Amino acid sequence: MNILDIITKKKDKGTLTREELEFAFMGYLENKIPNYQISALLMAIVLNGMDMSETLDLTDIFIKSGEQYELSKKMPNVVDKHSTGGVGDSTTFVIGPMCACLGLHMAKMSGRGLGYTGGTIDKIESIPGFNVNPDKEKFIKQVEELGFALSAQNNDLTPLDKVIYALRDVTGTTESIPLIASSIMSKKIALGADNILIDVKYGSGALMKTRESAKELSRFLTTIGEAYHRNVKTIISPMSTPLSYAIGNALEVAEAINVLHGKECPLYHSCVDIVATLYSMAKGVSIEEAKKEAKKVIITGDALKKFYEFVKAQGGRLGELSISENVIKVRAQKTGRIDTIDALGAAKLAAKLGASRVTLEDKIDYGVGIMLSVTEGDTVNKGDLLMNLYVKDYNEQFKESDFDFIKIVDL
Amino acid sequence: MNILDIITKKKDKGTLTREELEFAFMGYLENKIPNYQISALLMAIVLNGMDMSETLDLTDIFIKSGEQYELSKKMPNVVDKHSTGGVGDSTTFVIGPMCACLGLHMAKMSGRGLGYTGGTIDKIESIPGFNVNPDKEKFIKQVEELGFALSAQNNDLTPLDKVIYALRDVTGTTESIPLIASSIMSKKIALGADNILIDVKYGSGALMKTRESAKELSRFLTTIGEAYHRNVKTIISPMSTPLSYAIGNALEVAEAINVLHGKECPLYHSCVDIVATLYSMAKGVSIEEAKKEAKKVIITGDALKKFYEFVKAQGGRLGELSISENVIKVRAQKTGRIDTIDALGAAKLAAKLGASRVTLEDKIDYGVGIMLSVTEGDTVNKGDLLMNLYVKDYNEQFKESDFDFIKIVDL
Repeated sequence: MNILDIITKKKDKGTLTREELEFAFMGYLENKIPNYQISALLMAIVLNGMDMSETLDLTDIFIKSGEQYELSKKMPNVVDKHSTGGVGDSTTFVIGPMCACLGLHMAKMSGRGLGYTGGTIDKIESIPGFNVNPDKEKFIKQVEELGFALSAQNNDLTPLDKVIYALRDVTGTTESIPLIASSIMSKKIALGADNILIDVKYGSGALMKTRESAKELSRFLTTIGEAYHRNVKTIISPMSTPLSYAIGNALEVAEAINVLHGKECPLYHSCVDIVATLYSMAKGVSIEEAKKEAKKVIITGDALKKFYEFVKAQGGRLGELSISENVIKVRAQKTGRIDTIDALGAAKLAAKLGASRVTLEDKIDYGVGIMLSVTEGDTVNKGDLLMNLYVKDYNEQFKESDFDFIKIVDL
Repeated sequence: MNILDIITKKKDKGTLTREELEFAFMGYLENKIPNYQISALLMAIVLNGMDMSETLDLTDIFIKSGEQYELSKKMPNVVDKHSTGGVGDSTTFVIGPMCACLGLHMAKMSGRGLGYTGGTIDKIESIPGFNVNPDKEKFIKQVEELGFALSAQNNDLTPLDKVIYALRDVTGTTESIPLIASSIMSKKIALGADNILIDVKYGSGALMKTRESAKELSRFLTTIGEAYHRNVKTIISPMSTPLSYAIGNALEVAEAINVLHGKECPLYHSCVDIVATLYSMAKGVSIEEAKKEAKKVIITGDALKKFYEFVKAQGGRLGELSISENVIKVRAQKTGRIDTIDALGAAKLAAKLGASRVTLEDKIDYGVGIMLSVTEGDTVNKGDLLMNLYVKDYNEQFKESDFDFIKIVDL
């Protein structure tokens, strides 16, 4: 077999066999095939596509490139959830403890952020001491006993996905439904969840630009899940507005704690919906009943307590969570109604404050970010507070356009 | 400017600006941008194309990446010819001396062969001592005084084309009309020929698969030439049958000498046509008159004498040209008419004998090859000689299918 023939076959819109995919991709993982050939192949895949059978093969190659934790053989009701990107998305910190209180088991492997996307691992690291790299035994034991554990991606599971993801990231080859589907599902399946909920976002700031492409991705995700006898559900939702009032690492952790305390903000409702869906998938009860149960673990304070146990189990010192004390207040320039709060614009402002990294080498400032005071549909008077900016120092320069992601229209 | 934005723009079928092309390609030449990003960009260009303005910009970037010899400012009637691939193509060795005898100047820069394509430089190196790397001054002086010189591509001219060509070769990104056109024309223009004839081959074994794509390439080549005020003519011809009876390095040199001696084989007629076209382009005379002049330099023996001078000027010891003494005769298995002689099949057999290289590291055996005894349309009796194989030794194993590139049909 010859890598040039494989690249050329895909360039000419051919269908690659499992052997060809394995030769190319495993060859890359094993350093037998150079990155410049794989990046050409990836671009050909992005532009000419892969059919379902190629996608299933590639997913399986990803899975078998590493270990498989097979959690569902070790404990009941293993659930997982995934979101394909969102701004102010700290749902994991709320959902994990809630699920654990409901007798579900969630083993969450997450990534770091790059560009404007926030990463769950970066967010949790704003808690000093939190260990995002528990070893395999400790990780599985915590999931089994506490019901929830969080880990950064390691090299045990789907190492091939890791190197391909990194290459796609720097070669403009991220936007491919088959490649995205393989990447997401291989990790979930290698981990061993049997109930998987995936929130597929679409919109200008998301990987999927249109509702149609989000639906197509959803079809790939579900079909892959079926091939491995997993229970997969997808939610298709627009990524237009930030998921919570907080955008920034420590701020989002603090917001998650607020929700666990019972603050009924938009994030609260998203989390109740997700947990209820997972609970209903795992236990076979109705969504209505599942919602009741989900809300109960917040009302009783059990979920909050579980969160504290979870942080402590992974070495985090929550009392040391630090949010910048330098606050700039941004006020409405006119009276009107909040028409839209653009997620991407908010993410760009947070990035400017230092909340995310542009290159993998950048340092994140955990304490900075945005705390919105308004949500879409609110009415404001000129001079009303729109948001607090938590800044590193007061030297930061802002332009009008930094704030125009909040669009106010006349009443 | 950001390389990821540039790759993404082309992936999304955008038109790249000169600045973007320069940033990406010159960045690669200057080791600021890694090969895996350029190979992804090349694949996006292959699949999504480049328009004429992008192609003109890229050609100009190629030209300005190195020196320009500006030969036409130093001497009159500078001509050049190029063929986009052919089997048994030793025209350069015949055309160069013929042109020189007619008062034209030909400075030929050629490449080595890879895969089944023979390379002019490999062929001439079958003459012991021949220096394919004359320095710039010596090269230009020889063109001026002798009328013809031959050099391997060096790093003076279009160094960017050289690195991009090498990368395309190993990433399945060779088949792109704009990229092929930029590559060919940048070299011709940097050298400084003012009359350029390009033979665009098409067919299953050629880079251009169809007559339509050959015509499209021709349009790009001509338009680029016009932009630099060069006189460009193209010939579009099928690459179906070998150009001469000889396929193999020393054999092809010997065949070229036969033509210069006046052997009126198919190669003779091709060469007369090409020289006549160049002469008519440069001198403005009719093709008929040009053909008469072209034939004259062969009849007088001047072209042969010029060839000897050319070889001697570059250090070649023609008397030491060595062709293998081990000959296998391949005979017709049945009586009939030679319907087709497939060029690619012939090239594959020559490659099997050791006449070409599969990887850049392979050693070529200059003395081996095929000498056909028949041409398309000939009638043969069972047992008649079809070809002589010049082999390294008699241990070589052959299959029936090695010879079925010569197709004999019943009369």
